[in-house]
Amino acid sequence: MTRAELIHEIKTKRSFLCVGLDTDIAKIPEFLLDYEDPVYEFNKRIIEATSDLCVAYKPNIAFYEYRGAEGWNSLQKTWSLIPSNCFTIADAKRGDIGNTASMYARAFFDEEQGGLGFDSITVAPYMGEDSVKPFLEFDNKWAIVLALTSNQGSADFQNTLDQDGYQLFEKVIVKTNGWGTEKNLMYVVGATRGEAFKTIRKHAPNHFLLVPGVGAQGGSLEDVCNYGMNEDCGLLVNATRSIIYASDGKDFAEKAREEALALQKQMESELIKANII
Amino acid sequence: MTRAELIHEIKTKRSFLCVGLDTDIAKIPEFLLDYEDPVYEFNKRIIEATSDLCVAYKPNIAFYEYRGAEGWNSLQKTWSLIPSNCFTIADAKRGDIGNTASMYARAFFDEEQGGLGFDSITVAPYMGEDSVKPFLEFDNKWAIVLALTSNQGSADFQNTLDQDGYQLFEKVIVKTNGWGTEKNLMYVVGATRGEAFKTIRKHAPNHFLLVPGVGAQGGSLEDVCNYGMNEDCGLLVNATRSIIYASDGKDFAEKAREEALALQKQMESELIKANII
Repeated sequence: MTRAELIHEIKTKRSFLCVGLDTDIAKIPEFLLDYEDPVYEFNKRIIEATSDLCVAYKPNIAFYEYRGAEGWNSLQKTWSLIPSNCFTIADAKRGDIGNTASMYARAFFDEEQGGLGFDSITVAPYMGEDSVKPFLEFDNKWAIVLALTSNQGSADFQNTLDQDGYQLFEKVIVKTNGWGTEKNLMYVVGATRGEAFKTIRKHAPNHFLLVPGVGAQGGSLEDVCNYGMNEDCGLLVNATRSIIYASDGKDFAEKAREEALALQKQMESELIKANII
Repeated sequence: MTRAELIHEIKTKRSFLCVGLDTDIAKIPEFLLDYEDPVYEFNKRIIEATSDLCVAYKPNIAFYEYRGAEGWNSLQKTWSLIPSNCFTIADAKRGDIGNTASMYARAFFDEEQGGLGFDSITVAPYMGEDSVKPFLEFDNKWAIVLALTSNQGSADFQNTLDQDGYQLFEKVIVKTNGWGTEKNLMYVVGATRGEAFKTIRKHAPNHFLLVPGVGAQGGSLEDVCNYGMNEDCGLLVNATRSIIYASDGKDFAEKAREEALALQKQMESELIKANII
């Protein structure tokens, strides 16, 4: 999906919601366990219930990988099911040297070579340029680079000040900025770090930011929008647990829709406030 | 495998060689393509030809993952084949927040829950403590944290000096040191960065280091040993392409053995020189 198409979807759906598919077989409603592929059945119902309210889906690859070949099949089937008007994010946080990164890029981007056809993948920047660039070599595919994450441990290294007065996450943005463009590069910025959005926007005024941490993790959508929204919206705000585990009963998809709708309504207000729609 | 067992294997085999299994279906001898699972057949012959000369195998997970469910099956079968006197490393470079990291740990460590039974996994430190610790919670399993990698891009962030005068890779070692012990934590240090081993050993005198970059990447085994060896050896030196792609003919396993033997002989000399055997 191109940047223009993504912006079009945001304006049409009046939403910049991304739904995380961290589907844990131990947490899904019991009745689904009778199906051949319970994880896929769960995802199917979640997607059917929410795809008009969100602009992106983000399967967390760990939750599929731990089930081996079977999990990979669930992932493939889930990806196939996502409507083409939704941006797809493989939340894999990969990062390795050139030829290995190319293999990961093929795994997630290259349908013709037997891979999946995700629009984007999350990438860890620690290994530098040759670990990020292979993900930027596919038309209309995106690398979403970890900048400032929403977890507690993010402060261990990401906030380290260098001798020029930059924090590591700033250096990551400034450097990677030169490797791609606003059309194939986004950044992960946790919603729990509201105050940091100003700093991020100083270095990346136009890029899209993928923002986890709203909902169960406690980040504020309003803060994120106040400090992080740009004239194209520039935000994909992810919620996972608050949506997909809104209920553990037969009504889980219906409850997921209610939660997604509530977030979509808040997002619509923010988009109106910012004169984007 | 415990640290004591690993040291025992090094002394018994007179080797600290790790063989990388970055098995690319496009590079293996053509005659293997007639088999149902060519990647597994290739790995099988490589393992049979080298397992008395090396102490570890390191499948690069990207090379399996890009083939989806089929690739995951090749990986599982390959892992099952590795003799129990060889340390196994899932070169996956994973790094994600707590509950996701736990899922990855299950995928690679937890045989009883349907995962693989690797001894260790490579881990990216960017997301901090809660992304590393879940890998340290399994008995006799190891996290191998990226410190200073062998690729060109490693200088982009890993050498950044902080305000205390530490480079980022030093800070990673100093901080992570407190999260585990010498019995469940190793570091990745590229052989191409010979001069840096002194700095690494200042911060981690006793830890094992996993050292890629000897062979095709041009690192010197002698430099690595001069600056990096400790009294328990403390090194696992990896070679991949120079061994597994030594020949692309029917004699590939035989040639792989010749290359592995040449490295084992050099390693034996270094172990004797250091009075370890």
